[in-house]
Amino acid sequence: MEIESATQEKAGPLAIAWDWVKALPLNFKNIAVNLVRTTKKLGQDDPRRVMHSLKVGLALTLVSLLYYWRPLYNGFGVSGMWAVLTVVVVFEFTVGATLSKGLNRACATLSAGALGCGAHHLARLFGEKGEPIVLAFLVFLLAAASSFTRFIPRIKARYDYGVLIFILTFSLVSVTGYRVDKILELANERLSTIGIGGATCIIVSIFVCPVWAGEDLHKLIAFNIEKLASYLEGFGGEYFADPEDHEGNVMASKGDKALLQGYKSVLNSKNTEESLANFARWEPGHGRFHFCHPWKQYLKIGVLARQCAYRIDALNGYFNSDLQAAMEFRNKIRKPSKKMCSEASKALKALALSIKTMTDPSTAKSHVENSKTAIDELKLVLKAVSLENADLLAIVPIASVASILTEITKCVENIYESVHELSCLAEFKSTSVESTVSPEKPQAQLLVLHCGSIKPVLDGDNDHVIITVHVTNEEYSLQTEFPQLPKPGQS
Amino acid sequence: MEIESATQEKAGPLAIAWDWVKALPLNFKNIAVNLVRTTKKLGQDDPRRVMHSLKVGLALTLVSLLYYWRPLYNGFGVSGMWAVLTVVVVFEFTVGATLSKGLNRACATLSAGALGCGAHHLARLFGEKGEPIVLAFLVFLLAAASSFTRFIPRIKARYDYGVLIFILTFSLVSVTGYRVDKILELANERLSTIGIGGATCIIVSIFVCPVWAGEDLHKLIAFNIEKLASYLEGFGGEYFADPEDHEGNVMASKGDKALLQGYKSVLNSKNTEESLANFARWEPGHGRFHFCHPWKQYLKIGVLARQCAYRIDALNGYFNSDLQAAMEFRNKIRKPSKKMCSEASKALKALALSIKTMTDPSTAKSHVENSKTAIDELKLVLKAVSLENADLLAIVPIASVASILTEITKCVENIYESVHELSCLAEFKSTSVESTVSPEKPQAQLLVLHCGSIKPVLDGDNDHVIITVHVTNEEYSLQTEFPQLPKPGQS
Repeated sequence: MEIESATQEKAGPLAIAWDWVKALPLNFKNIAVNLVRTTKKLGQDDPRRVMHSLKVGLALTLVSLLYYWRPLYNGFGVSGMWAVLTVVVVFEFTVGATLSKGLNRACATLSAGALGCGAHHLARLFGEKGEPIVLAFLVFLLAAASSFTRFIPRIKARYDYGVLIFILTFSLVSVTGYRVDKILELANERLSTIGIGGATCIIVSIFVCPVWAGEDLHKLIAFNIEKLASYLEGFGGEYFADPEDHEGNVMASKGDKALLQGYKSVLNSKNTEESLANFARWEPGHGRFHFCHPWKQYLKIGVLARQCAYRIDALNGYFNSDLQAAMEFRNKIRKPSKKMCSEASKALKALALSIKTMTDPSTAKSHVENSKTAIDELKLVLKAVSLENADLLAIVPIASVASILTEITKCVENIYESVHELSCLAEFKSTSVESTVSPEKPQAQLLVLHCGSIKPVLDGDNDHVIITVHVTNEEYSLQTEFPQLPKPGQS
Repeated sequence: MEIESATQEKAGPLAIAWDWVKALPLNFKNIAVNLVRTTKKLGQDDPRRVMHSLKVGLALTLVSLLYYWRPLYNGFGVSGMWAVLTVVVVFEFTVGATLSKGLNRACATLSAGALGCGAHHLARLFGEKGEPIVLAFLVFLLAAASSFTRFIPRIKARYDYGVLIFILTFSLVSVTGYRVDKILELANERLSTIGIGGATCIIVSIFVCPVWAGEDLHKLIAFNIEKLASYLEGFGGEYFADPEDHEGNVMASKGDKALLQGYKSVLNSKNTEESLANFARWEPGHGRFHFCHPWKQYLKIGVLARQCAYRIDALNGYFNSDLQAAMEFRNKIRKPSKKMCSEASKALKALALSIKTMTDPSTAKSHVENSKTAIDELKLVLKAVSLENADLLAIVPIASVASILTEITKCVENIYESVHELSCLAEFKSTSVESTVSPEKPQAQLLVLHCGSIKPVLDGDNDHVIITVHVTNEEYSLQTEFPQLPKPGQS
């Protein structure tokens, strides 16, 4: 070793350069291999990415027909360029983002174009010398004012691109107007090609394998809740493991190690959720979502899920502490704590499933109740426990874990409440219709009334009317799914 | 009241419409008042926003001279449009963002322009009929491939805009090339006007009241750490308040209520920090920051600060619990817990100050040590406490608070470590030179060696050389600040 390094030192910069040149093909090969691997992984993780790239290519090729095809070129001429420009800038991954950019661009171009023409005519009034000065002043004023509006949070979130295009178009129209005489003709050509570009984007984006921001948000929220559930399940199994049941413990820990880190992506999900919700509101009804789907409610659930994730991160700090300490105390609180973990986890899983399938989250309710019972059981155990020989120092971390778990259980209840609210707002279909709907059980009615989405019909005979609303949401009909129920109006 | 509503119901839609029209001026007034209020608040919160808007106006007006001024217009003609377009799109709030976009645009335009010309010549080889097909195929291929690279996280973060412009330019050049003969002349005109636009942006952005992303990141990190400190200070004062000292308690709680919510903005600071760091690396040296300032280290501190904020959020859950419960136990752990709080808070404040003033964070060290002593004291108290008459149920939340505080103290130590690392990497100036530097005290040397930024000169006489490096960073010279020390080379 020593000899080798000595030789290297003697060899000097020439040898180092030679080594570098020798390593070049290998380096290139490494880079290429890495690139292929990254590309493959990106494509496998979400095949829609590959599809998106092909869609961009398709839209661009379609729009470039404006140049290649003689009849179209004769019509639009060089303005076809604006169609290409629009496609490149407007085409986004999700339908919502594309629509948002396209509509922003359209509105901004129209209004700024009109204003620009107005400014042009106004400036003409000031004579040949005054015209450029007035134009320059107007451009300065409008650009400064519009740039400032981009700092207003609400405008930043939804119309940022529109304001940008507004400044751009106004400047272009009023400035070029100074040199070009046929300004209206120019504006007309540009507007129509921008329209063609925007329409191409929107059509390709909606009709060729569409990616809906709303659906992504819906899945993301469900997926995040599932991650929290997985953590709690893994934590309960590991931290409160039964020391006599070694096999189950080891098996659980192997499979759960990856799951236990999943919650970390929930901690920083705010921006993704907000931008998805912003795009979702531009999207037309699709699949199970109608136009006015309550996207805002997803953000509320997201906030609560993050709150829960913060608690879980605090819990995670105790995960690697000595699991053999204070065995006596740990054994005493094991049962209720483990139950709290598993019931909270089951509740979250049921909530995630309820969101995914868009069904009523009532199955989660029982788990939430069970977890609350577990809290009460824990309290009883804590009251009864004798501490005469106990080492408080060893007990404190375990007690803290139990206490944080209690807080997490409260978070889970909050998440349940807001998912329930979502199920009412978005009229999720009820899973428990068969068991609860009968004239003798008024609970089903109460549930519907509590949702507040429909006016109750309280005449004794019309119970079924209320249920109809819940079921027709998914285009089921009472007759097909519940043939034993009387048809509306027959009772 | 009843009569009124009855009248309204009878009045019908006409009256409602009339009411609406009557309310219109008032509504407009409200909107205007709100707008003025929002604008004023935005401007007051950060006056640089107003300045930025004026700068955008200035840059646009400068660039539109290409149209207004006859000699320039004769030179560039309609291509002046591209300068306007570039300014609108490239001008961003911070210098880093403007530079990043400008350089991205320049590189992408150049490379895609060259490639486009190449594609154009290649397509010519396939004859008149083959040319549009080959061009369309090339545009499809390149657009699809480039769109896909935008999903690669590293490219997404830094070169997203560049790839977009690459697709745009390549499509424009190869497509318009099909109809325009003097393609090189066109490319030349466009490139120079884009260059003028980009240069105008960069010059205005750097030389007129520059907003540096790096400085913003620097301040944001310090500010976030300060917020955590404020929370801990407020929490310690409130939760472990001395019941006999009522006045101090009330006073603290009044002033701190707002401060106690400040930490919440730290929870979601990840995206802001990352984008600022991304922009900062494009910026030239400015003020106290040189070109290769270790911006990545700020992100590391940010991660640790967020981790601490998550724990604080968990702590906050206990804040509103019964402050009178288990007084006996609370009194016992009051002293060490309060000390933990206040020392952690002081350490964080010292760290924030050290970042702000770019001085060595050694003053925080003693507070970190004190907080660790407080943990030991807490442990002793917990060991000694007798629990015979204690109600464990009431104790658990308080013990949890103490336990979470211990975790927070560990976080604070981690933050200290990474700020210390930053101070070495960025060569913060030492505050303790005067007291520690003397031939008898080798600690100052050790500190410098530990930082690893300079090679030690260990010959007994050359101690001062080491110190020089630390001091010259801020352009102090040994001679001016420590005239009693020998000049280098004199000893």
